[in-house]
Amino acid sequence: MLNIGVIGYGYWGPNLVRNFNETGVVQVMAVSDMNPARLQLVKQRYPATRTTINHRDLLTANDIHAVAIATPVHTHFPLAMEALKAGKHVFLEKPLTETTEQARRLIDEADKRGLILMVDHTFIFTGAVRKMRQLVESGELGDIYYYDSVRVNLGLFQPDINVIWDLAVHDLAIMNFVFDQKPVAVSATGMGHVPGKPADIAYLSLFFENNMMGHIHINWLSPVKLRRSMIAGTRKMVVYDDLEPSEKIKIYDKGITVSERQALYDHLVGYRVGDMVAPQIENHEALNFEARYFADCIAKGEQPVNNGQAGLEVVEILEAATRSMQEKGCTIELSAGS
Amino acid sequence: MLNIGVIGYGYWGPNLVRNFNETGVVQVMAVSDMNPARLQLVKQRYPATRTTINHRDLLTANDIHAVAIATPVHTHFPLAMEALKAGKHVFLEKPLTETTEQARRLIDEADKRGLILMVDHTFIFTGAVRKMRQLVESGELGDIYYYDSVRVNLGLFQPDINVIWDLAVHDLAIMNFVFDQKPVAVSATGMGHVPGKPADIAYLSLFFENNMMGHIHINWLSPVKLRRSMIAGTRKMVVYDDLEPSEKIKIYDKGITVSERQALYDHLVGYRVGDMVAPQIENHEALNFEARYFADCIAKGEQPVNNGQAGLEVVEILEAATRSMQEKGCTIELSAGS
Amino acid sequence: MLNIGVIGYGYWGPNLVRNFNETGVVQVMAVSDMNPARLQLVKQRYPATRTTINHRDLLTANDIHAVAIATPVHTHFPLAMEALKAGKHVFLEKPLTETTEQARRLIDEADKRGLILMVDHTFIFTGAVRKMRQLVESGELGDIYYYDSVRVNLGLFQPDINVIWDLAVHDLAIMNFVFDQKPVAVSATGMGHVPGKPADIAYLSLFFENNMMGHIHINWLSPVKLRRSMIAGTRKMVVYDDLEPSEKIKIYDKGITVSERQALYDHLVGYRVGDMVAPQIENHEALNFEARYFADCIAKGEQPVNNGQAGLEVVEILEAATRSMQEKGCTIELSAGS
Amino acid sequence: MLNIGVIGYGYWGPNLVRNFNETGVVQVMAVSDMNPARLQLVKQRYPATRTTINHRDLLTANDIHAVAIATPVHTHFPLAMEALKAGKHVFLEKPLTETTEQARRLIDEADKRGLILMVDHTFIFTGAVRKMRQLVESGELGDIYYYDSVRVNLGLFQPDINVIWDLAVHDLAIMNFVFDQKPVAVSATGMGHVPGKPADIAYLSLFFENNMMGHIHINWLSPVKLRRSMIAGTRKMVVYDDLEPSEKIKIYDKGITVSERQALYDHLVGYRVGDMVAPQIENHEALNFEARYFADCIAKGEQPVNNGQAGLEVVEILEAATRSMQEKGCTIELSAGS
Repeated sequence: MLNIGVIGYGYWGPNLVRNFNETGVVQVMAVSDMNPARLQLVKQRYPATRTTINHRDLLTANDIHAVAIATPVHTHFPLAMEALKAGKHVFLEKPLTETTEQARRLIDEADKRGLILMVDHTFIFTGAVRKMRQLVESGELGDIYYYDSVRVNLGLFQPDINVIWDLAVHDLAIMNFVFDQKPVAVSATGMGHVPGKPADIAYLSLFFENNMMGHIHINWLSPVKLRRSMIAGTRKMVVYDDLEPSEKIKIYDKGITVSERQALYDHLVGYRVGDMVAPQIENHEALNFEARYFADCIAKGEQPVNNGQAGLEVVEILEAATRSMQEKGCTIELSAGS
Repeated sequence: MLNIGVIGYGYWGPNLVRNFNETGVVQVMAVSDMNPARLQLVKQRYPATRTTINHRDLLTANDIHAVAIATPVHTHFPLAMEALKAGKHVFLEKPLTETTEQARRLIDEADKRGLILMVDHTFIFTGAVRKMRQLVESGELGDIYYYDSVRVNLGLFQPDINVIWDLAVHDLAIMNFVFDQKPVAVSATGMGHVPGKPADIAYLSLFFENNMMGHIHINWLSPVKLRRSMIAGTRKMVVYDDLEPSEKIKIYDKGITVSERQALYDHLVGYRVGDMVAPQIENHEALNFEARYFADCIAKGEQPVNNGQAGLEVVEILEAATRSMQEKGCTIELSAGS
Repeated sequence: MLNIGVIGYGYWGPNLVRNFNETGVVQVMAVSDMNPARLQLVKQRYPATRTTINHRDLLTANDIHAVAIATPVHTHFPLAMEALKAGKHVFLEKPLTETTEQARRLIDEADKRGLILMVDHTFIFTGAVRKMRQLVESGELGDIYYYDSVRVNLGLFQPDINVIWDLAVHDLAIMNFVFDQKPVAVSATGMGHVPGKPADIAYLSLFFENNMMGHIHINWLSPVKLRRSMIAGTRKMVVYDDLEPSEKIKIYDKGITVSERQALYDHLVGYRVGDMVAPQIENHEALNFEARYFADCIAKGEQPVNNGQAGLEVVEILEAATRSMQEKGCTIELSAGS
Repeated sequence: MLNIGVIGYGYWGPNLVRNFNETGVVQVMAVSDMNPARLQLVKQRYPATRTTINHRDLLTANDIHAVAIATPVHTHFPLAMEALKAGKHVFLEKPLTETTEQARRLIDEADKRGLILMVDHTFIFTGAVRKMRQLVESGELGDIYYYDSVRVNLGLFQPDINVIWDLAVHDLAIMNFVFDQKPVAVSATGMGHVPGKPADIAYLSLFFENNMMGHIHINWLSPVKLRRSMIAGTRKMVVYDDLEPSEKIKIYDKGITVSERQALYDHLVGYRVGDMVAPQIENHEALNFEARYFADCIAKGEQPVNNGQAGLEVVEILEAATRSMQEKGCTIELSAGS
């Protein structure tokens, strides 16, 4: 049994507490939040769980081995660093940190102390995203042409981050997990429409080697909610619609055929259309799965796939994209995870 | 009755011949095509219409007052120039020309001779697009935040132009018609996946003054066909889905409310959600409407809204977007129609 | 504060306990279930709530004023009768009872003792159904042509009732609430496909006076889940799709126009097509609303709209429909609530 | 080359003329219609085709071998009988005739004279319906539970027939083609809402041997257009949506599993959920296919699958359903094609 403390019981914290508790292998010992009204809620729902307005009470508790941090982004680094220094394993909300510099320091600290640092990239624990990874890895899609995602809705405006840091982080984590290639450059455009607030609409183009590209449209000002991605490959194409109650993944046996006969220039490209298959997807709660994985990695002393390094790779792109957006689309090179 | 000749009877030509004939006010006298098999089709369908493999036969015919040109883009300029010099009014397929330089020369020639030069921006004659213009003009949407469009499908690869020139031209013509502002800069990214062929997927970001932006996703390699645009304004938001059999336009009484009380920083932005209305849209064939408009402009000697200048403004953006794409998203300034 | 006991903690019981507790005006004092494992769950979630395998412990408790019964249909009558005789108000799962005879006896007992008897017709507390009632009552739809509903999915087979008693009960409760007319006759067809199990697919036709009809398709063997109703009137028509995340109600300004000129026989009927409006629907949890309404009716001593009589009217149709189905569609007259 | 005459150039006639002409193996020699304005249209479109207001001119023409009849239903029998007696093969619009008696007499007349009598059941020539037949025939669906169809829209009211004869005929023809069983009884309900006009909404239940049933909902007063059928079998289930531009057929690997262990009564029925496949469907124009098939049957002297007998079987059900509807759902036995 892993004993955990949760820092922050705002929007996401209640999901963490519920899911950790329901794993059967993790026990939430204590919750801290600066707002006593939120702690009152904890008391009602979990009478046996300790509550405190001071997160340090969790860090000094001997019966707590790990903390989960679900607080505003600008507090991620100081809180996580403090926790690591107190010898606690850390489960940290996405995005990992505000800067790559901060991310590197957390990774180093965790490494030095032999602690697990995991970033909450929830989507990579869904059946749909795991299916996409399997389709790419197995070669069923062939060589990848592009990943294109639309993630838009009305709100919620975040006070301290722009829409890229709020929403694109999901797609970047998914791409990081699904593809074995890393982007080498990013170009972004976007705009804020509320005076004094960060960008509420943005578009990211990601460049890979081997003629592959990515694109992410994120938007807090859309009249409709959309959560749809496409992956096209030389052999098959996939549409992933996260709002579909079933059939979230559709695999199209479609593509182009390139004729050898260069002479007939205008008939060079033909089209291939076959069946569409919506495979049965495992339907578990991703966060529950992830919570058990966290406990498992700690127990075995193994690096999680969504470790600090994965979080850093995402933060690097977020950082570069924000800079590119300020420069109206100018391409920024990435270190490509090296 | 306007007597017209049609040059090119390939993919689009048959639609032109049929629609011009069905106006009741235009008569297709002759059709030219370099392929005799295509002319055979004309003969079968319209026994009274003259056919020829030489377009010059149309230009020298005294009973022909205007020509419609539906040929590959690289032939637009020479054919249209020849027709204007022969004293014929010209209805030219989109995009108007391959370069702004060519567009300007056609405009000058038409002006000098007092001839009508019209570019086939078919979408602006649909009930849906006309409705959007009315919603913007009347102020019902408020100030515009953005126009976002997705226009993707599998194929058809064009031999001589990239996907921007093939598909984005529709959205640029729509924006030109719907908004009274012109974009001042463009950033584009994209990629070709077939060796030796032009870009088959691209993303355009358009910058306007007054915090408005545009974005167009065009793609020949998509497993699904999508034709969806969104316009968001300070008062209402619109989704235009051209593939909906009915309810192509949906108007959402949704938006954000910005509170005056700057102190409560994180409650600054609220949401407003009301009814959605799908207005009854006039359901005519756009091309028929446009064909009659062409005859009407000639009869009255009036400049069409989709004249050479409108075609030029679109070509300027296509040109700049292609250059930006080659420079991986670097922003290119536009003359903004000045 | 109303103190309540809940009998049955199987599929629906947990929803009752949660919603009653969250009203703020009802307190769940005790829960009974014959399965100790279910009671263990209650203990975990609500440490302060008493649990027992004997429902009589609830009926004899002086601090409990009312019971909610969420058990198999064949136990509804004996449990509810016992509770009424013990002086408790009763909130009873749908369908009210297995027979009209049982329903009448419960109504009489409740009347005699001045107790509230309420049947859980949850849907009539949704924003969508309340909107439909308002559209009908206000005359916005005109005279009603029909109500047509499709309520199908794969499973769940109920052990002791057929698909009509499981699913059609929802539509009958909705119709009872939305329309002020009662059906005067019913014809039903259907079939069971699993040996020894009740009908798993059925179709009900309901006849009203004034040329109105109703139809309900219920099905446990459908590959897709559908929850869609239509109401057509002389002035407007409504589609209610309960699976739509937003826009559950769509109002179509469509209809027919009947010309006076009887001579032109084949032009007698014309069509009228206008805007479609999806009104903003109040988005509360129906069961929470209903739980508060139960407490309110008890406090004020007022008959609920979903009282025993409403439950009886639904049971009468269920009974008649089952008989009609056995007679392959033969029409059965109803007492029409008289 | 088969020379044909077409009687009736109203709503459907133009489709017949165009499709027969485009087969390449049939030539439309003449068209008759009682309305000269309709014949004027023919002249414009097909200058070489003869026109006449007297259908007898087609029956006496020696260069015409067959006639296609697209006139109101009450004229089907006299016109077809006249044509057969004049020695012409007959292609007759659906429904074949107004009564089974008339149908039998046409069949006899055609048999006696060795002429082909074919009824225009267009849908059985679509790729989607042919796919369904193949799925049933091959056993891929297992034993069939039911066929359920919804075919509703606003209008068009027919002057001389009720909605069953107008719309249900399609589903009955499809069922006749897809299944090798014939229904043994029918129960129907429905209602007319326009004084003096026939029923505009109806529901048909069809009973088969072997625990299979069918149901058809047809409606001229629906705010939305729906064309959706479901077939469920013991092994797989199919949804056929004719309004889907692609993916008209979806095959669900879903079903129930019936446990042997009768003791565990309430766990008797389990659910099985697997992949969904939308097979690539051949995308030809059904009427063109059917027109060639008509010529082919004449050339080879072979009975078409949609011969007089198939038309009769459908008419028998239409007749019985209308009677059942008048008797408020009372079941009518069918001869089951015997």
